[in-house]
Amino acid sequence: MISPGNLRQSSHLLSETQRPLLVTHVAPDGDAIGSLLGLGWTLLAQGKSPTLACQDVLPRRFAFLPGFEKVVQDPPPGPYDLLIVLDCSDLDRIGQIGEVVGRDLPLLNIDHHVTNTRFGTVDLVAEDAVSTTHLLYHLLQRLNYSLDERIATCLLTGLVTDTRGFRTANVTPEILRIAVELMEAGAPLTTITRNGLDRRPLAALRLWGAGLARLQSANGIVWTTLPVSVQQTIGHDGYGDAGLANLLISAEEAKVSVVFTEQPDGEVEVGFRATPGFDVSRIALQLGGGGHALAAGCRVPGPLEEAQRRVLALLREDLARQRQQVSPDDKRHPQPE
Amino acid sequence: MISPGNLRQSSHLLSETQRPLLVTHVAPDGDAIGSLLGLGWTLLAQGKSPTLACQDVLPRRFAFLPGFEKVVQDPPPGPYDLLIVLDCSDLDRIGQIGEVVGRDLPLLNIDHHVTNTRFGTVDLVAEDAVSTTHLLYHLLQRLNYSLDERIATCLLTGLVTDTRGFRTANVTPEILRIAVELMEAGAPLTTITRNGLDRRPLAALRLWGAGLARLQSANGIVWTTLPVSVQQTIGHDGYGDAGLANLLISAEEAKVSVVFTEQPDGEVEVGFRATPGFDVSRIALQLGGGGHALAAGCRVPGPLEEAQRRVLALLREDLARQRQQVSPDDKRHPQPE
Repeated sequence: MISPGNLRQSSHLLSETQRPLLVTHVAPDGDAIGSLLGLGWTLLAQGKSPTLACQDVLPRRFAFLPGFEKVVQDPPPGPYDLLIVLDCSDLDRIGQIGEVVGRDLPLLNIDHHVTNTRFGTVDLVAEDAVSTTHLLYHLLQRLNYSLDERIATCLLTGLVTDTRGFRTANVTPEILRIAVELMEAGAPLTTITRNGLDRRPLAALRLWGAGLARLQSANGIVWTTLPVSVQQTIGHDGYGDAGLANLLISAEEAKVSVVFTEQPDGEVEVGFRATPGFDVSRIALQLGGGGHALAAGCRVPGPLEEAQRRVLALLREDLARQRQQVSPDDKRHPQPE
Repeated sequence: MISPGNLRQSSHLLSETQRPLLVTHVAPDGDAIGSLLGLGWTLLAQGKSPTLACQDVLPRRFAFLPGFEKVVQDPPPGPYDLLIVLDCSDLDRIGQIGEVVGRDLPLLNIDHHVTNTRFGTVDLVAEDAVSTTHLLYHLLQRLNYSLDERIATCLLTGLVTDTRGFRTANVTPEILRIAVELMEAGAPLTTITRNGLDRRPLAALRLWGAGLARLQSANGIVWTTLPVSVQQTIGHDGYGDAGLANLLISAEEAKVSVVFTEQPDGEVEVGFRATPGFDVSRIALQLGGGGHALAAGCRVPGPLEEAQRRVLALLREDLARQRQQVSPDDKRHPQPE
């Protein structure tokens, strides 16, 4: 997960810094906040004076995390001696904070995304980590930094939210063993799962209701649309589809699911999900987007009805091709995931 | 979890039996099926000839479990020399199979429900087990029965489904440690969570849609109704509210959530959920039902509108009382649960 060269370089930057600025991505999730705070507490324990920043307001459901209220949206001008960017596949992800910070600072890039562009002075990027906090856990171990209850709570939060509560296919026994160690250091698993996974604004539930009421299903494709007018009536804040695509793929009838979310500018955000054995990254790529085999997305021109027709036609063709390729293999995988 | 006396008696019954009949409850869930099959494979490995039965058809999403197709709805008349009842709080829970089986058989009652009525010749009941398979895991350890991939898969299924994927408040590091051991014995966690927790019929999603479209919220209570006419239009099979009550309590605005499901006979099934710090078992009990602090239910007379008005009025009063009692304590529990 961490090469000796990477470890040496990261260790050097972390031991030399006195006033580091730590930044995570816009629209922050549990792993963004967990890795930001987890490394923040670690550096504080090492006698450093870290500043923690995120351009967007942190979702209130993470207020249980120690240090939540210390994260600033507009970091003071400094001076800083190191920029640490957490959980970002490229530097644009930190938003406008990137324009404020001096470009001449050494930059430590800590991330686990397969699409990371290696934008750091030192790139501590581990694609085999299930979360950025998973990578941080290994870094702390290798540097012999000790865990306390606060750090463990932050690290477990990223581990839990990025694996949807240990539900993704990359959860090995090692991940559960780390979870045990973090719990024994004081991390409250139930509080983390409850706040990180099982809480959402009423408006998100109403948006799901609107989407589910318009549910359609044919040929293994389950889909729905979210017109702007519906989003406005509900008072949805526009954070994508609020997880509706993940819900749709849970339908037993679905090989692939799609949510078409109309944008105020008339474009349509398309979120794809697939069940194991199918791949939606190719169609997303073909339409100018990207992603993984089981979760991908793109933006296409409106109007909504036309976008829906066009994407579903492409998807039907693509699925028919995939089915032909997949079927002979099916029998060799008696327990598909 | 298992007393020496219990262990001795259970061990005696299990070693003496040659043709045991294993039965689990109607409307079987992951722990019911997992404990039935897990103990079935264990006894088979011990050279016994177990028969496995459940009155209801097993949900197809558990077809990945080894031995799934071996479970019968109408067990042959026998003869049997032992009846083993799994995951049932009382004997009525096995349904009509109870009427067929000879009442003179010795009965081993293996369960983890706090409401278990101790109906067995030997009652192996552990209220501190998170699932019946959790209890079975300890039994197998104590009896030095070995785990294989099939047994591990069945046991992990109960552990995962009864804790909603390690999300309930009773998940300690020990539970995750057992999960690690079962995974290392070959249990496929991702397959289990996907099929046991993340799959549902399209009709269930449509029912959620109908319920969420009718969502109401006031004074910390989030509720909805499912009229019979709506259920029929959707083609819902009538297995309760398909988990809608659990979804409603995820609303950040909810202290308590309620789903009113109208029944074909005109009565109304009421499902309550609470966030930690509140207790819905008292109101359910007061209305002739029962349950736990965070999840309870009852049946009240219709019509739907009248039932809703009456229950919500009682609930508002009860909540106001609870808020008064709870508030002074709140500050002492910064991280409830």
